[in-house]
Order: sequence, then structure tokens, then C-alpha cells
Amino acid sequence: MNAIATVGILGGGQLGRMLALAGLPLGLRFRFLENQTDCPAAAVGEVIVGRYDDPAALERFARGIDVATYEFENVPAATARWLTEHVSVFPPERVLAIAQDRLSEKEFFRELGVATPDFIAIDDFDQLPAAAEQLGFPSILKTRRFGYDGKGQMTLRSSDDIQSAAERRQGDVLLGRNRAPESLILESLIPFRRELSIIAARSRTGEDAFYPLTQNTHRNGILRESIAPAPGLTPELQLLAESVAERVLDHTGYIGVLAIELFELADGTLLANEIAPRVHNSGHWTQDGAGCSQFENHLRAILGWPLGATGCHHPHKGGTLTGGRGPHCAMLNILRELPDPKMVLGVPGAHLHLYGKSPRAGGGGGELRKIGHMNIIADDAQALDERLVVARSRLARCL
Amino acid sequence: MNAIATVGILGGGQLGRMLALAGLPLGLRFRFLENQTDCPAAAVGEVIVGRYDDPAALERFARGIDVATYEFENVPAATARWLTEHVSVFPPERVLAIAQDRLSEKEFFRELGVATPDFIAIDDFDQLPAAAEQLGFPSILKTRRFGYDGKGQMTLRSSDDIQSAAERRQGDVLLGRNRAPESLILESLIPFRRELSIIAARSRTGEDAFYPLTQNTHRNGILRESIAPAPGLTPELQLLAESVAERVLDHTGYIGVLAIELFELADGTLLANEIAPRVHNSGHWTQDGAGCSQFENHLRAILGWPLGATGCHHPHKGGTLTGGRGPHCAMLNILRELPDPKMVLGVPGAHLHLYGKSPRAGGGGGELRKIGHMNIIADDAQALDERLVVARSRLARCL
Repeated sequence: MNAIATVGILGGGQLGRMLALAGLPLGLRFRFLENQTDCPAAAVGEVIVGRYDDPAALERFARGIDVATYEFENVPAATARWLTEHVSVFPPERVLAIAQDRLSEKEFFRELGVATPDFIAIDDFDQLPAAAEQLGFPSILKTRRFGYDGKGQMTLRSSDDIQSAAERRQGDVLLGRNRAPESLILESLIPFRRELSIIAARSRTGEDAFYPLTQNTHRNGILRESIAPAPGLTPELQLLAESVAERVLDHTGYIGVLAIELFELADGTLLANEIAPRVHNSGHWTQDGAGCSQFENHLRAILGWPLGATGCHHPHKGGTLTGGRGPHCAMLNILRELPDPKMVLGVPGAHLHLYGKSPRAGGGGGELRKIGHMNIIADDAQALDERLVVARSRLARCL
Repeated sequence: MNAIATVGILGGGQLGRMLALAGLPLGLRFRFLENQTDCPAAAVGEVIVGRYDDPAALERFARGIDVATYEFENVPAATARWLTEHVSVFPPERVLAIAQDRLSEKEFFRELGVATPDFIAIDDFDQLPAAAEQLGFPSILKTRRFGYDGKGQMTLRSSDDIQSAAERRQGDVLLGRNRAPESLILESLIPFRRELSIIAARSRTGEDAFYPLTQNTHRNGILRESIAPAPGLTPELQLLAESVAERVLDHTGYIGVLAIELFELADGTLLANEIAPRVHNSGHWTQDGAGCSQFENHLRAILGWPLGATGCHHPHKGGTLTGGRGPHCAMLNILRELPDPKMVLGVPGAHLHLYGKSPRAGGGGGELRKIGHMNIIADDAQALDERLVVARSRLARCL
């Protein structure tokens, strides 16, 4: 590899942008394959404008790059395969296939002996009543593919909801929104205590690193807030989550940063929910709260470089995870409209990360776009709570 | 000001690049006026290719930017004046005039009651023998303008050196390297204990922030290493340096980040040496060692935004500066050739910052170019020392 390497990234959104912002200081150059010219990553690298399934664009993208990676997992299998034949691609193709399909994902966890919510594949809509009865209510019906930020999901609270699911379903099929009526999964809706995520990194050298568990709060299926380390985090819980991540890394031959969403139940057990084979929104706090961010560690990992520090509160490194002592970090997603930087940066310990997206003209459509996030660092959990109260009120129109 | 502001920077070198890397996450856009197309800043913004004294380039640069700033101080006075009439420019023009001329700088310190090494203006080369006798040996003869990284300087250790200075001087004039034989200053060469620098920031709102004093080591006039906080730093010394910086900020109506190079004498007094009206090489450690880097704080300052944390070891904020406890940071400049990132990043707490410069073809010429730097963070002074030993040996070919 040349001293100045070029990293190719499939996708030019905010994750691509933040990967490049982390990688430019390392002397790297970046190229993105992206459908939109004025994408967030355009400010920090070369954009090849094209769709993932456009062979000419793909060829131009691949020419001369040293390594390729993804900023999201819904890349066509044929694209991933073609790329893999032409350039080093990390993480490996097979983990995409698992992460793209909720059924494969759940079956993969089961194979590894990792607990997940109960699930039943719905190959035909007629199977739904029996499946719902078997899992019990509430349960959640999801499209197996292409769901994100809560889209393509419907909660079933009683047998009445089965009928409306069927009707909505038919409407969706009529509207062409989902052409494959068989691609569904029904999952048991677990009354979890909270949602956590573990961000892990594995380098081409085999080195591993884990960030402290993060506590995530969603509203309408969209991540709103993360706190790290997760309040009350014990070394035992951290190790439990790391062991899940380690099994996934091992069994997929994983290279790069990996995120796993987990449910913590009232009894302290963890259920695995989803894999994201990439840098993840719940790891954005690492930009300001860890020795080395998830973005930089992803690049270090795929280049076979030594990994950077994942925070001073790692249980293996003598830090404490309990009692609220030591630095704590929070991340608030910024949606809807651009905040006033003066107000945001006036919060002590605040850092602002905007993605260079203009708020959508008209602002209508009801779709909540992530246009940035705010990180807050404090010396202990109590100070963080106080700063969060101020931050939430100042960002109120953007949350 | 628009929600998405464009910052114009005179100069497209590494300081411009690092300003943009700090400002892109704040949602800012960047434009550079720079003579060279493939400059370090080209990766992170729009480059207007042109000289500072090219009116057409200057006009294109100024059109539509919200605020302008400099990445170095040797901007023609006429350029600064023209810009100031067309756009908000920070720091103010008058501080450039002071910082561009070693005589004005020293006289300015004297006006403020800030101690400096003794100095005599050399308007005519015939004045040199008398001036040298008055200041005593050793002394140092400098060009008043355009010196940097030790260039344009000559040490006089005895009266013999006066003759060779005169001869070299004539040679320089013949070679056209310095056309104004009167623009010299002779300074007393003080046997200082060490060189320190203070980095200060003042926002348009009037808010001030100071980073802990940094200890700097030069070789052949080029900064090689910085350590922060300066070993053994006491709150008294920090306050002394801050009071010098505060006087400079006050008397120039300064806005932005300011660096002042200081000599610490054996008795603990400080002499002011130089002003840099910009982000400074001795403040690069703040990228990884402070809550908010000098680059981000410079942007916050010139935009009138709240300043970010300058480190947890500020004496006004309850931290301790003595005894080697608490985080310590070091910066090593990378010269000559690109290092192996694997070796650099394998040092615990290491961060790499390359400027996107290709090592010069041939590598000859003897000029040492700064092509990057390495920051090292450690939990205490002793751990930092140990890491520095490893880092210096791994970077040996680049130091």
C-alpha cells in the first residue's frame, strides 16, 4: 500500500463524511460512490455519481482505490461481490448478507448461541394469525429487508391488529412499496428495560477493541439520545456484551467497526436485536468522548493499523464503570432544522457535528432527517444530566 | 449570518487545512486564497488560486464569504486593508502590522510594559559594531520581516562574527534575498531556561480562554517538540503568561486565537519573544489534548460563538498544574518523509496528523518541510515521557 492510500466508500452520507473527517488527518484520501452530487461527503472527497448497480460507475469507483468499505449495509449483493473480486473490501461480503435480512440476522444469532427475541418467518400472510398466537401479544411485524429508522414495522397488540396489518399490507403491495409479500418476520415484543449497543472494532491484524456499552433512546423508531457509558454499567454487563460481539466478529471473519443493538431485560440478561456492519449512530459520542473515535478506528481496522483507545472506562484497563464517576458522554441527534450554534456551543462540554445538509425546502413530508448531532462531555454522570437538561431545552425544535 | 457560513482563509497550507477540518463539523464551508493548486487545504474546501496581491483573485475570494481570517501573518498590508473594507476580517489588520515586523513587535511589548530581550534597530549596517558592543555577546541579528523557522537569523558570538555577518549580508543583497539593507534588528541572546508559548483565544463576544503553557523545543530554528502543560508549570507562571496575553488582546482589539512565544529565565521571569496572530504549531497538541482545539476555538472566536474548553488543567478551573498529575500531551513535528502510520499509531495514546503533502521529489535542497505532526496523550507526565522515548525512536527518520 502507498504511503498515501485512497479509501473508497459506498455511500456519501453523513457516515461517509465523518469517516473522511477522521481519515484526512491520517493522510488518507477518500472517494465515494453516491447517487446525489450534493451529498454530505462531497465536502471531503471525490464523489463518483452513480447508483450501486451501475457497472460503469462501480468500475470508476474501484479504479485505483486501496481498500473499499460501506457506510451502510443495504448494498446489492452483486455489487459487493463484484467489488470483492476487484479490491480489498471490509467488512466482508457475507456479513452484509446477514445484516440485510432480519431473518438471517436472528438465525445467525441463534446459531451462535446468542439470545434474541423469539421470531417466526412469515413466508405467506396467511401464516400470521397462527404465528401471532404462538408468539403471543404484543409482537412486531417487520419487513425482512430495507427497514431503517422504524420504517417497515408494525406492532400487533391484539388479534384485531392482524386484520389491519393485512389491510395495510395489501395497500403497500398495491402501492408497490413492498413487492415481495413473503419477506416478513414476526418478532416477540419484549418488555425490555432499555436498549443498549456495543461498538466493537477488529483490525486486519486481529486486534480487538470495544467501546463501553451505550444506552440508546428511540422515539418513533429513530434514535434520539445515547449516553455512554450506559448508566450503572457493570464490568459484568460490559463483558457479556463484548462476548456477543466477539462471537459475531469471529464467525463472520469481520474486519472493521461493528455495532450490535441489544435489549437489556429487567433480570439483566441481554437479547441481541440487530447488527450494523459499519460505524453506527449510537457510536457518534466517541468523536469527543473516547481516545479514538469509531470512525478513526474503522479506518485503522480496515487498513491493518493498530487500534486507538476506546475510552478510559474500559473494564479491562483498570477503569471503573460504576457509580457515575469518571467522564460521561451524551449524543443528541439533531433533526428537523439547523440549530443556532451559539445556543448549542454555550452548553459546557458541547460539541456540534453538522452534516452539511440543507434543511429540506418546504420542510413538509413528515420525514425526520438526521441533519447533525450534538455531543456533550462531562466529568461525571450528575454533571452530564444537568447539561443534558439544558441541551434538550436549547435544541427543543430540533429533537 | 446564514446558518451555513463560509469562512475565507488567506493561505491554503496545513493551518488552513486543520481550521477547515475543525470547522466542517460546525457546519461551516471554507474558501482559501492560495498560490498553489495542490495545497494541503484543497482536500477540504474551495481554493481560489492566486497571489495575495492579485486584485481579481482577492475579489473572487471575498465574494460571498461571511468572515475572513489568515493562516499566517505575512499578508501584504494593502491586501489586509482592502479585505477589511469588504468583509469582516479577524484578527484585525493592525495586529498583522505589529507581528510582521520584529521591531514593531518588540516596541509594542515595551509599550505594554511586557519584558523582552534587549534590542536595537539596525537601520544601517555601519551601526552594527556599536550596537553589538552595547548589547554584549552573544546577540542575534535578524531580518525585521519575513523570517520564519529560523530563517533570516544569525548569531553573533564575538566581534569576529560582525565581519562575517557583513559579508553574508552583502551576499544576500547581491542575491536579491533581502533588498532592504536597513530592515534588521539586533537582539540580546538571553540564556533562557526554556521556551514556552501561551495560546489565547478571544471571541467577538469578549469571552477569553487560555490553554495551559506549552514547553517548546527547537532545533535549527524549527519547532521539533511541544509538551503541555509545560513540565512543572505552576498556577503563578500560568497567570503571568495569561496577563501578558491579555494585555496584547486588549491593546490590539484582538479577535481569534493568538500565540505568544516566551522565554522563561532561570529566575522564573518571562520575556516575550514573538507574537503569532493565528493558530500556532505549538498549539497542535490541543487537537487531541484539550476539550476544544485551537482550530475550533479560533473559528468559534471569529464567529462570535461561545469558546470551548481549553483543557482540564486550567488553574482558574480547579485543576492542578504541578506534580505531573493529570493528562499530559506532547506534539512531535514530522519533517523530511512520511512516517509509517503503523509504527506511529502503535504508540499508546498516539494521534497522527498529516497535511496531505507529498514528500518533495528528490528530497534535496536541505529545506526541512513540516509534513505532519504526531500528538501523544498520557495520563501523567511519567507515562508521557515513556511514550515520547518510543515515539522519538519510531519517528527518528522524520524528526
